[in-house]
Amino acid sequence: MSMMEIRSLTKRYGSKTALDDVSLKIAKGSIYGLLGRNGAGKTTLVSLISNRDFPTSGEVLLDGANVKENDRALKNICCMGAEQLLPGYMRVKDVISSMRYFYKNTDAEYANALCEKFGLDPKKRLSRLSTGYRTIAKVIFAMSSGADYIILDEPTLGLDANHRELLYKLIIERFNETEAAFVISTHLIDECAGLFERVFVLREGRLIADEDSDALRRSAYLVEGKTAEVDSFIAGKKVLTRSEVGSFCSACVSGGDVPSPDALPDGLEVSQPTLQQLLIAMTEEG
Amino acid sequence: MSMMEIRSLTKRYGSKTALDDVSLKIAKGSIYGLLGRNGAGKTTLVSLISNRDFPTSGEVLLDGANVKENDRALKNICCMGAEQLLPGYMRVKDVISSMRYFYKNTDAEYANALCEKFGLDPKKRLSRLSTGYRTIAKVIFAMSSGADYIILDEPTLGLDANHRELLYKLIIERFNETEAAFVISTHLIDECAGLFERVFVLREGRLIADEDSDALRRSAYLVEGKTAEVDSFIAGKKVLTRSEVGSFCSACVSGGDVPSPDALPDGLEVSQPTLQQLLIAMTEEG
Repeated sequence: MSMMEIRSLTKRYGSKTALDDVSLKIAKGSIYGLLGRNGAGKTTLVSLISNRDFPTSGEVLLDGANVKENDRALKNICCMGAEQLLPGYMRVKDVISSMRYFYKNTDAEYANALCEKFGLDPKKRLSRLSTGYRTIAKVIFAMSSGADYIILDEPTLGLDANHRELLYKLIIERFNETEAAFVISTHLIDECAGLFERVFVLREGRLIADEDSDALRRSAYLVEGKTAEVDSFIAGKKVLTRSEVGSFCSACVSGGDVPSPDALPDGLEVSQPTLQQLLIAMTEEG
Repeated sequence: MSMMEIRSLTKRYGSKTALDDVSLKIAKGSIYGLLGRNGAGKTTLVSLISNRDFPTSGEVLLDGANVKENDRALKNICCMGAEQLLPGYMRVKDVISSMRYFYKNTDAEYANALCEKFGLDPKKRLSRLSTGYRTIAKVIFAMSSGADYIILDEPTLGLDANHRELLYKLIIERFNETEAAFVISTHLIDECAGLFERVFVLREGRLIADEDSDALRRSAYLVEGKTAEVDSFIAGKKVLTRSEVGSFCSACVSGGDVPSPDALPDGLEVSQPTLQQLLIAMTEEG
């Protein structure tokens, strides 16, 4: 099975470390979530994977070969960038018809079908697209590239709820047909949680989780109730976040099994966080 | 109680009708959701309310007075625009300190406190902000304007989950303190649903719902099961959407009470949609 391996990747911009010794593996046939706050290093990682930028140290290997200035490897990796890399005067249809010069397995028919499904006029120039359609155009280019590794960076930015639902359905369909690896970087964690088999979590440039999506969610629980009772219950446990409203308190506890309701003091309630609630707790500052 | 009244507002751009005979009322002391797909007319409505653009016909009244070129009325309405209206070389702190020339009740102290909470450096120039921080800056300007009518257009665009949670909390706090009317236009319907007392739904320029948020959600139900059974159950009912996967079918039915499980044929399940599911069904094309 084809595999991308990221080894000890570090990227510094002057005194700022954007990415700090990140190692992870991405296999064909899986959908990954790349999660973290704005500024955590997600886009830097994507730029390094796609050779748009060079690491300070470390390497990205595709089936054992370094991707650095390696055209053969790079033709198998298609990253949808957050920034606009194509000239604005190009029409959507011109991008689609010229993509095959770089991605030889480009499926132009599929790209045109996607344009129709999303109601994107292929004759429009890139510079004339709204925020939502600019995102949709970039998603269509990446998904129809025929690459084995498809990296979608914020594919929901500016999309309305109908288009987001359509997008999730299309990603699953395309994944089932092609078995490409999909890496999806997004802030809409709960909406996308059902797509992810595995998630990578970045925090201030460091990889703080590389785990099965369900296992990660089950690795923590929420406990809520009167402040004094919650505080006595969480004493000595690993607490990710704790917030108080009036005499009421809520805490997110990491590690250990969810206590059974019988084992809890009266008035306390435990529940499983959603992936988004857990991510907020894991990546909160301070 | 102060009240904004929108009367038969229509806006045409050439042959395209962006807003078609829309009438609604916005009262101080309530939070409204302004919902609809991209292109449904939400931003056009916001531009007309704030006198950034003129209606083809109809009018916007604030406490009985037309807002058109009415400085006194307009100083009480603050719209966060989707587009960037301020020059990019301005620093965040300069915008904050000059706002009081237009919005005399501007609360600069509150604006600075919000910058700190969101981690926005007030010395940054607007043109140097990322997508998320550009949104945050515009939200801060609107929320600290001291206006009685605060209109937030896509206040979550580009925000990470932590910042979105903070934003929802701050909106509720500020609403409780000021009793300003908040109108929030967003595509993240489920996340914001808890904020809305009432929602306006636009579809292709027309207002198709102006209703209490909970009542709207309870006005429809989902029915799921084997296709033949679902189809026989929904025959003669008002069906908003119907989708099939294999031999399984799901439909959203509008109007009438949710049938009790006892009254259902075996194998069918009914449930209440989330506000977002309902909105997708109400605004789907075709």
